[in-house]
Amino acid sequence: MITLHLIGIGTGNPDHVTMEARHAIAGADLVLVPEKGDGKSDLADLRRQIVAQVCDAPPVIEGFGMPVRDPALPYLERVERWHDAIAARWSEAIARHPQARDVALLVWGDPSLYDSTLRIAARLDPQPRLRVVAGITSLQALTAAHAIPLNTVNGPVVITTGRQLRDHGWPEGAETVAVMLDGACSFDVLEPDGIAIWWGAFLGMENQILEAGPLAEAGPRIVAARARAREAHGWIMDIYLLRRSG
Amino acid sequence: MITLHLIGIGTGNPDHVTMEARHAIAGADLVLVPEKGDGKSDLADLRRQIVAQVCDAPPVIEGFGMPVRDPALPYLERVERWHDAIAARWSEAIARHPQARDVALLVWGDPSLYDSTLRIAARLDPQPRLRVVAGITSLQALTAAHAIPLNTVNGPVVITTGRQLRDHGWPEGAETVAVMLDGACSFDVLEPDGIAIWWGAFLGMENQILEAGPLAEAGPRIVAARARAREAHGWIMDIYLLRRSG
Repeated sequence: MITLHLIGIGTGNPDHVTMEARHAIAGADLVLVPEKGDGKSDLADLRRQIVAQVCDAPPVIEGFGMPVRDPALPYLERVERWHDAIAARWSEAIARHPQARDVALLVWGDPSLYDSTLRIAARLDPQPRLRVVAGITSLQALTAAHAIPLNTVNGPVVITTGRQLRDHGWPEGAETVAVMLDGACSFDVLEPDGIAIWWGAFLGMENQILEAGPLAEAGPRIVAARARAREAHGWIMDIYLLRRSG
Repeated sequence: MITLHLIGIGTGNPDHVTMEARHAIAGADLVLVPEKGDGKSDLADLRRQIVAQVCDAPPVIEGFGMPVRDPALPYLERVERWHDAIAARWSEAIARHPQARDVALLVWGDPSLYDSTLRIAARLDPQPRLRVVAGITSLQALTAAHAIPLNTVNGPVVITTGRQLRDHGWPEGAETVAVMLDGACSFDVLEPDGIAIWWGAFLGMENQILEAGPLAEAGPRIVAARARAREAHGWIMDIYLLRRSG
């Protein structure tokens, strides 16, 4: 029986990798690596670099092509079909190595947070044994870079997506809201008075950018900085935290 | 000028430590370590063990006594005065090493999540330069141990405390609720129908315990397992995730 190790590796800074992740990568006899497809050229080789760094005798690395999402489908169905297609690619890649027992997948951030790896793994047939190794998320890289706590004393926190913020506005009764997967600066739907923002892009990486301040002032600076950085790099990965005072 | 490194070290499993944390500990010339006081004997020496593990030439370790909270004060004021008192102990400990430039504090979990270290550091005078190193939280150790995602597809997550759950019930409109700092199984205030729970104690440690299932059935099992484990160890650290279906 195969054990599939889903290994969180942090946000692109090799120093985010935990000892547990190093051991899990070094102990694998097959590592599955997606080949380009996400259009993020700076990240394309980083998984291979991390594998090379932590392994004395590198395991077999097998690339798989990432399928494309069908833009004609409604959002949730589009995601479901895409996950089916990725699971099929994993199965094909594993089938090419019938001797492999410990198969590893390296996941940006942590496999638990806005990541599809667990849902894709659940589609595999036969179902492998699953092992999850936690990794530093971009949300933790954000609060660390700004040296701020995520929560106030005894205060709750909502973690949500740009899509949710755009569709439903400020979460009912929330004080602190962390927003992930926002490709469109969705904070612009909010009435900014009394809200502070802490934003970061390329967190933990060499070209990390930070901005913070009252949303009314920092919001436009972030929109501009994000557009410039995206233009310069060809892609961007960012996240932000909003806090309502009073 | 002093740099104070607040270093997340995970939940008690030395393998949770990141490479960044290892380098930060090894690079410190003074490490402040609280002496007992938290009544958690299994944890008392773990910080010193981690320091010894990651350093070829161990830095100077300076213990400080943890002050006691005044139970006569209201909750928020009690916390404020306690943080003042801890900051004073840090200042005294640092003053005993006037040559130290890089001072480290090892924090369970991540310094951003339900941890007071940043708020205590803000009280220091003179204010040191602050550097935060993210660490694996007990929430990540929980989802990894159960091999579950924290969120549903595009779904928001509320992170809150046992006190909040007890005082305010199920957060308005929430689907997934992670509960931390709950000394009293506060899920017992909820109408359990349609709610699933994933619980863990001593996460990442040798004596890790897991329970999961529909709240109506798993809730009483957790109350019993928690009481037994607390009795056996003299202390307990636990966390759980609740998800409402439909």
